[in-house]
Amino acid sequence: MMLELKSPQLLTDTELLAHIEGALTQVIATRSLAAKLKEATQYALLGGGKRVRPLLCLHCCAAANGNMDHAMPAAVAIEMIHAFSLVHDDLPALDNDDLRRGRATTHVAFGEALAILAGDALLSIAFEQALSCVIGAAHIAHELASATTEMISGQVLDTLGGFPKDFNPAQQLELIHRQKTGALIRAACRMGAFAAAANADTLDRLTRWGETMGLMFQVVDDILDETQSSQHLGKSAGKDAAQGKMTYPKIHGLAWSRDHVKELLEHSEQLLKPLGAPAQPLRTMAQALATRTK
Amino acid sequence: MMLELKSPQLLTDTELLAHIEGALTQVIATRSLAAKLKEATQYALLGGGKRVRPLLCLHCCAAANGNMDHAMPAAVAIEMIHAFSLVHDDLPALDNDDLRRGRATTHVAFGEALAILAGDALLSIAFEQALSCVIGAAHIAHELASATTEMISGQVLDTLGGFPKDFNPAQQLELIHRQKTGALIRAACRMGAFAAAANADTLDRLTRWGETMGLMFQVVDDILDETQSSQHLGKSAGKDAAQGKMTYPKIHGLAWSRDHVKELLEHSEQLLKPLGAPAQPLRTMAQALATRTK
Repeated sequence: MMLELKSPQLLTDTELLAHIEGALTQVIATRSLAAKLKEATQYALLGGGKRVRPLLCLHCCAAANGNMDHAMPAAVAIEMIHAFSLVHDDLPALDNDDLRRGRATTHVAFGEALAILAGDALLSIAFEQALSCVIGAAHIAHELASATTEMISGQVLDTLGGFPKDFNPAQQLELIHRQKTGALIRAACRMGAFAAAANADTLDRLTRWGETMGLMFQVVDDILDETQSSQHLGKSAGKDAAQGKMTYPKIHGLAWSRDHVKELLEHSEQLLKPLGAPAQPLRTMAQALATRTK
Repeated sequence: MMLELKSPQLLTDTELLAHIEGALTQVIATRSLAAKLKEATQYALLGGGKRVRPLLCLHCCAAANGNMDHAMPAAVAIEMIHAFSLVHDDLPALDNDDLRRGRATTHVAFGEALAILAGDALLSIAFEQALSCVIGAAHIAHELASATTEMISGQVLDTLGGFPKDFNPAQQLELIHRQKTGALIRAACRMGAFAAAANADTLDRLTRWGETMGLMFQVVDDILDETQSSQHLGKSAGKDAAQGKMTYPKIHGLAWSRDHVKELLEHSEQLLKPLGAPAQPLRTMAQALATRTK
């Protein structure tokens, strides 16, 4: 990676995404692994995806006046955790999904045994990556570990239930999403801040901004699941509703959900104000995440 | 943990094992987790087991003149990785085992979905633990991550094959065991040494001693699988042979395998010589591992 050659703010998103894809390709290609495991992890990690978490990590590093190069191993690590979670969540015993990003899920393409082990390997190699950061490695890896545990706990609630007895549906929904999606998005931002050795105020702002993004991301996801076709999304749409799962539109209505996205976007803007120009890519990302259609 | 109260050499194995069980119980009990996930991870982690890896880790720390307290989070972490690997290896899509340590495997007791997620959580919390070490946390966690990846790669070879084309059966067997069992045992020893901030010579000796123990452990396991009953072992005996899996007795014969255990034991003694009295518990462990009957 040689992002230093150009000021991060001058990199187009296309250029930055090319750097991320390059780093994701390298991490598996250069790792000594059983041939079948290498193939399956590459399939799971390199099959498209919006790379939202790595972008958040890198842009948060830059917003805290850090060098994006220093955050790249953390960006790779967080995307590997995301990929691991998709591989395991798609398994027959869990969500039993055949289609992901417009192609066969890992267990359909490689069999269940290899999908389980490929998910495990993505998780494990993610920590090798996080620990290779030159600044804040131990903080970054610990952030990654605790967010991963929280995400898994959220997946248990989502798949198998077991909420505290006094939780109403709206509280259940919030808990699931804060853990299942929110924890990793928040961690992506904090890991970027750690790689920049950010001060306490900046770390706190980027943490709260990440929490806001995590929530917004999920509300938008729920809206899209209800309003878009499977073909457009490249995954099974309407499935949440069909399975009787809780979603924001279902509990609060579609109009409320859309208003809520606007409120969260405004709140995120307030949080970034003191960070000035280096946070500009984060503002652009928030806008794009709020208005995405897939 | 207050192991400092007593010199490590004065702790009996029973006392040390009680400390380990206490630490393993604490790590899940004090972690905020979905109720079902907590139950399943506790079942998987606290269902007996010889605690060989934590003992190796703690004794290697003491052999390098470290404080055993400092190695306890690493000892817990390595046992969690071992527990994770058992839960996933036992799954129907992999080894499909119903019995482990004389009781139902995790997926039989809790269902497949929760077993997959409990394994994932054990893996993730293991890194939280490793990173809580007060000395050498980043080294310890990196050692754990790379050994875990190697173990998973070994499991892929064992379950699905895919060896380099020019490998003969003896080479295949060695590669599987070096990765599948050896990597984690070696890591247990190195993590203990890191927690003691060991010098290069001591780290190297404990690394090679760990490699010798890993190999010996596996040869003994293969001998027991062929010579002992399922009831005695608390797991399905003779299964390796029945499934046509390679074992040391099958490839080299039972007499050669027994001789090899003796050679490895002698070699391990040579490696420990310069470490003197603090390495005495390691000598006792090597002897016990060589002569175990279950």
